[in-house]
Amino acid sequence: MRAVDIICKKKDNNELSKEEIEFFINGFVNGSIPDYQASALAMAIVLNGMNSRETADLTSVMMHSGKILDLSSIKGLKVDKHSTGGVGDKTSLVLGPLVASLGAKVAKMSGRGLGHTGGTLDKLESIPGVSISLTQEAFIKQVNEIGIALMGQTNDLVPADKKLYALRDVTATVESLPLISSSIMSKKLATGSDAILLDVKYGEGAFMKSVEDAVNLATVMVEIGKHLKRDTRAIITDMEQPLGLAIGNILEVKEAVNTLKGNGPKDLVELCLEAGSIMLVQSKVYEDREKAKEDLLKNIENGLAFKKLKEFIKAQGGDVSYLDNLDKFETSKYVYEIKAKRDGYLKRAQALTLGTSAMKLGAGRLTKEDLIDYPSGIVIRHKIGDKISKGEVLATCYTNYENVNEVLKEVEEAFSIVSEKVNPLPVIAKYLV
Amino acid sequence: MRAVDIICKKKDNNELSKEEIEFFINGFVNGSIPDYQASALAMAIVLNGMNSRETADLTSVMMHSGKILDLSSIKGLKVDKHSTGGVGDKTSLVLGPLVASLGAKVAKMSGRGLGHTGGTLDKLESIPGVSISLTQEAFIKQVNEIGIALMGQTNDLVPADKKLYALRDVTATVESLPLISSSIMSKKLATGSDAILLDVKYGEGAFMKSVEDAVNLATVMVEIGKHLKRDTRAIITDMEQPLGLAIGNILEVKEAVNTLKGNGPKDLVELCLEAGSIMLVQSKVYEDREKAKEDLLKNIENGLAFKKLKEFIKAQGGDVSYLDNLDKFETSKYVYEIKAKRDGYLKRAQALTLGTSAMKLGAGRLTKEDLIDYPSGIVIRHKIGDKISKGEVLATCYTNYENVNEVLKEVEEAFSIVSEKVNPLPVIAKYLV
Repeated sequence: MRAVDIICKKKDNNELSKEEIEFFINGFVNGSIPDYQASALAMAIVLNGMNSRETADLTSVMMHSGKILDLSSIKGLKVDKHSTGGVGDKTSLVLGPLVASLGAKVAKMSGRGLGHTGGTLDKLESIPGVSISLTQEAFIKQVNEIGIALMGQTNDLVPADKKLYALRDVTATVESLPLISSSIMSKKLATGSDAILLDVKYGEGAFMKSVEDAVNLATVMVEIGKHLKRDTRAIITDMEQPLGLAIGNILEVKEAVNTLKGNGPKDLVELCLEAGSIMLVQSKVYEDREKAKEDLLKNIENGLAFKKLKEFIKAQGGDVSYLDNLDKFETSKYVYEIKAKRDGYLKRAQALTLGTSAMKLGAGRLTKEDLIDYPSGIVIRHKIGDKISKGEVLATCYTNYENVNEVLKEVEEAFSIVSEKVNPLPVIAKYLV
Repeated sequence: MRAVDIICKKKDNNELSKEEIEFFINGFVNGSIPDYQASALAMAIVLNGMNSRETADLTSVMMHSGKILDLSSIKGLKVDKHSTGGVGDKTSLVLGPLVASLGAKVAKMSGRGLGHTGGTLDKLESIPGVSISLTQEAFIKQVNEIGIALMGQTNDLVPADKKLYALRDVTATVESLPLISSSIMSKKLATGSDAILLDVKYGEGAFMKSVEDAVNLATVMVEIGKHLKRDTRAIITDMEQPLGLAIGNILEVKEAVNTLKGNGPKDLVELCLEAGSIMLVQSKVYEDREKAKEDLLKNIENGLAFKKLKEFIKAQGGDVSYLDNLDKFETSKYVYEIKAKRDGYLKRAQALTLGTSAMKLGAGRLTKEDLIDYPSGIVIRHKIGDKISKGEVLATCYTNYENVNEVLKEVEEAFSIVSEKVNPLPVIAKYLV
């Protein structure tokens, strides 16, 4: 087998065999196939595509390029939710304890935030004491004991994806359904979950700009799951505006706690109940989504969900007194309010701009080496469709930096108010379940 | 400007500006743009194409990536013929002296043969004494004095093409009209000719398999000439079978001499008269092709063309006594005859197979480092359409190697004879003049 023949085959828009994909990816990872051949193949895949069998084979080969987490000693089906990344997305913080409180097994590996989207690890670490450096043994033990555990992604997982992504990034070969979906799915599958719920975001703050693009990506990933025999489902959700109201680590932890206590923003609650009920069905704890949803709501009302969060945080080494008393959390030195300049209806609250602004205020990283300032960020006060009065607060900005006038201006410009009534956006645009 | 944005633009099937092409090619040549970005762009060009403006700009940028031969001190218009490569193509040996004998200026840079196609340099060097290592001054002086000179391609010509071709070869990005045509034209233009006649071969022994593909390539190259204001014309000629009868260095020199003396094979004579008359019009020595053709034929008959060949070879240091007495040339140790196994008409005489077989007999190189055995090769005795009798000689094979039975079998299989009458192939399938 020769790399050049495999490139030629894809250039001519023919189907690659599993053996060819294996030969190429393994050669690329071990260095026997050089970058310049891999980038040529990547471009051929971007322009000529891959069918679902090829995409599943690519996923499987990438998944097996490194270590695969063995979670077979966890009793019960492990279910994982994966979001394609958004602004203010604290769903994992709510959803994990919530479904675990009803008996689902949540064994989650998570990443850090970069750019305008936050990461679950960073949010959790903003709770004093929390550590995500668990051994695999401790991780499995914790899931068996309390139903939920979270650890940072180890470096030996899917090396093919790391190497390929770095190359795609500089060769304009990122935008490709087979390449994006195999990248996401190979990582999820390597972390050993039995079932996966994908939350594919669409809109200004997401990688996929339209519902249609998001559905296409979700469809390819669900197909991969089908080929590789893992229960994979998907929901397509709104990222035109931030999810919930809070953006920034401590700010989002507080919102997650309030949501588990029954005081969450409407969109976040709805997303958690919908996603949670699907996950409970996937983990075979429930047969019926409606019944699962009822019980999820019940566990918020009776305090069991919040209790599970505290068990979880305690097990991860965190100081749960912060959760009982949110006022204990550190606050930022400076607070600025952005006010509405006119009456009307909220037409836009741009997720990308707000996410980037929150990052600039200290809540996120531009490069991997940057430090995060936990109390910083933005809390918006309204969602698209809300009626607004002139002078009302649209957003509150928290920061420890001085001279943030430029950023505050950007936050202001992220909003637009119009005279005509505006319909609120549905949280979930589509279900692939 | 960033390389990745330029790749992205072509990936999205948009037109690249001259500045973008310049930035990318120059960066690639000086090493600031790595191979893996260049191969990604090459693949995007293969799959999305380039329009004629982009292709002309690419040609111009490549041409200027190295030294450009300054032939302005040669009096009169320099005209050059370029063949895309074929088997038994000794046209340059005939055509150069022929048109020079009527006053055209032929300042030719030529390459060596590789694989199944021979190179003009190798053929010339099979005449004892000939040297192609001329200084630029000597080269120009020779053209001014006798109208014709030939030198080897220097290494500082079009470095962009050398580097890009090596990369394309291993990334399945060779087959692309804009990339092939800019590669050919940049080299031709860098050698300083005022007018170019392209002989684009089609058929089994050529890079372009059909007349249509050859016309497409020729059209793109003629367009490049138009954009860059160099008189560029093209003929599309047959390479289903070898050109003329002889394949191999000394064998082809002999055939060229015989052709200039009026005893050439019909197809070679026709090609030389047609191409020669176009070149004489391009060099503005003649206005009318028919008149030019008459005078070309006259110069073959009156011996002036052969006289010009001898002047040329003498100027290049060659021993012309070999041309006067062809029997002086070294001959091979072994001679084998391939005979017809049945009566009928010659249907096939595959150029690729015969070229490769001649190479294996010693006439050519498989790798750049191989040595050539000048007297080796094949002389075919018939052209497609000829009536054949059983037992008649189809080809004579010359070699200094022992154990060539495998090769002889291949030569035999290159021919096929059928019962039905077969039409001869036209030498020139199409004119773009």
